[in-house]
Amino acid sequence: MNATGWLAIAGLGPGNEALITPEVSAALAEASDVIGYIPYVARIAPREGLVLHPSDNRVELDRATLALDLAARGHKVVVVSSGDPGVFAMAAAVFEALEAGNPAWRDLDIRVLPGITAMLAASARAGAPLGHDFCAINLSDNLKPWPLIEKRLRLAAEADFAMAFYNPRSKSRPEGFARALAVLKEACGDARPVLFARAVSTPEEELRIVPLDKAEPEMADMRTMVIVGSSRTRIIERQNGPLLYTPRSAPGTLP
Amino acid sequence: MNATGWLAIAGLGPGNEALITPEVSAALAEASDVIGYIPYVARIAPREGLVLHPSDNRVELDRATLALDLAARGHKVVVVSSGDPGVFAMAAAVFEALEAGNPAWRDLDIRVLPGITAMLAASARAGAPLGHDFCAINLSDNLKPWPLIEKRLRLAAEADFAMAFYNPRSKSRPEGFARALAVLKEACGDARPVLFARAVSTPEEELRIVPLDKAEPEMADMRTMVIVGSSRTRIIERQNGPLLYTPRSAPGTLP
Repeated sequence: MNATGWLAIAGLGPGNEALITPEVSAALAEASDVIGYIPYVARIAPREGLVLHPSDNRVELDRATLALDLAARGHKVVVVSSGDPGVFAMAAAVFEALEAGNPAWRDLDIRVLPGITAMLAASARAGAPLGHDFCAINLSDNLKPWPLIEKRLRLAAEADFAMAFYNPRSKSRPEGFARALAVLKEACGDARPVLFARAVSTPEEELRIVPLDKAEPEMADMRTMVIVGSSRTRIIERQNGPLLYTPRSAPGTLP
Repeated sequence: MNATGWLAIAGLGPGNEALITPEVSAALAEASDVIGYIPYVARIAPREGLVLHPSDNRVELDRATLALDLAARGHKVVVVSSGDPGVFAMAAAVFEALEAGNPAWRDLDIRVLPGITAMLAASARAGAPLGHDFCAINLSDNLKPWPLIEKRLRLAAEADFAMAFYNPRSKSRPEGFARALAVLKEACGDARPVLFARAVSTPEEELRIVPLDKAEPEMADMRTMVIVGSSRTRIIERQNGPLLYTPRSAPGTLP
């Protein structure tokens, strides 16, 4: 174990460079190695003395093991995630590898550097749909069984949370999001607004707001964040585009 | 209505300047007026041409109305929140005032600039307790009835979400958090880890992790973020302090 090594697990935000914190930029400026999923590593400018380690999707534990091993050998390693590393991203994967791996890794200098996660970037672009109590659910069933996802959707609707959905749809699981929408239409039983926010903060950004009963699976792809309002979520119509927001108060109290 | 005015509702993050996005810094550099709760406005450096408008707690709608009125008169206005403006902060209050107020306000240039919200800053400092599905609940009952809070706590426990609690405790409502902890102890029925993260990213930062059955109301104050793990949340013991994280996978799937 070389005492000069360290590992930072950093969030690059949703895409726009102006949404990367100075803390993350400073870590990247000091790094000897940057590790991550190909499109996220592609956001890092090459420079002398920096080795980039892009890897494919679904090899999170291999990536985490490489990062821990390099840091233990004295490298200054940044693992990059889109958004925030602690929300459906690399931080938990690194800790899984840490717990199961070489006990000496536990002495490493490891930091998690937060970032602007997709749901908050999407929410900001649309207004404030997460302005009251809400939940965040990963709709991928790679790592959890579908019945658990469905149970959570039904309980979240009963709790009247606004709901932010990560990974709603991918080419390998085209049917999951259709099932999720069917459960939500039944459980919510109304026409509350749904936000489809694609590639937020990038030149490809597209926002679309539709009533839940008109939401279709094809409105989302793997770059889309979906936010389903609570029963209280409202739209303010404007000439420069609608604003979507959830009031701070709930029935039974004065606004 | 003066066409040069604009309104940005911006998040200052949890306290450390290195966690303020360049987007927010740029808006502050262009602003003519900064509006917000006293301790947040105190974080803005005074400069020639900038008017600071600090105001007390619980006057969110007055503050929002001032911001909209100044922007309509041509001012370049930044409303500042701690953390992210869309999470239990000023964005929803501004949209409530916008919806109820002068119809001409709807033509204003209004942007929400996201920030690092307290739960993600706290999560990053402790590890990755929000690495799987989670919910965020404001425990203040100023704007919602207590039975709704209790219902959400019970449903969130049944859904096995990790839970992030904003505003757990204040001088004016000392008993609410005690009731919330009692509900959680009963509903969860185990010794899952609870994180008390106070003043994260500031010189006064304090982190404490205790089992749920040992959690006490006095462990939180108004500067504390509380994160209660899911049934799967784990602790990795280390010489340089424990790491708290929730694995990505749930029972019924291979890790």
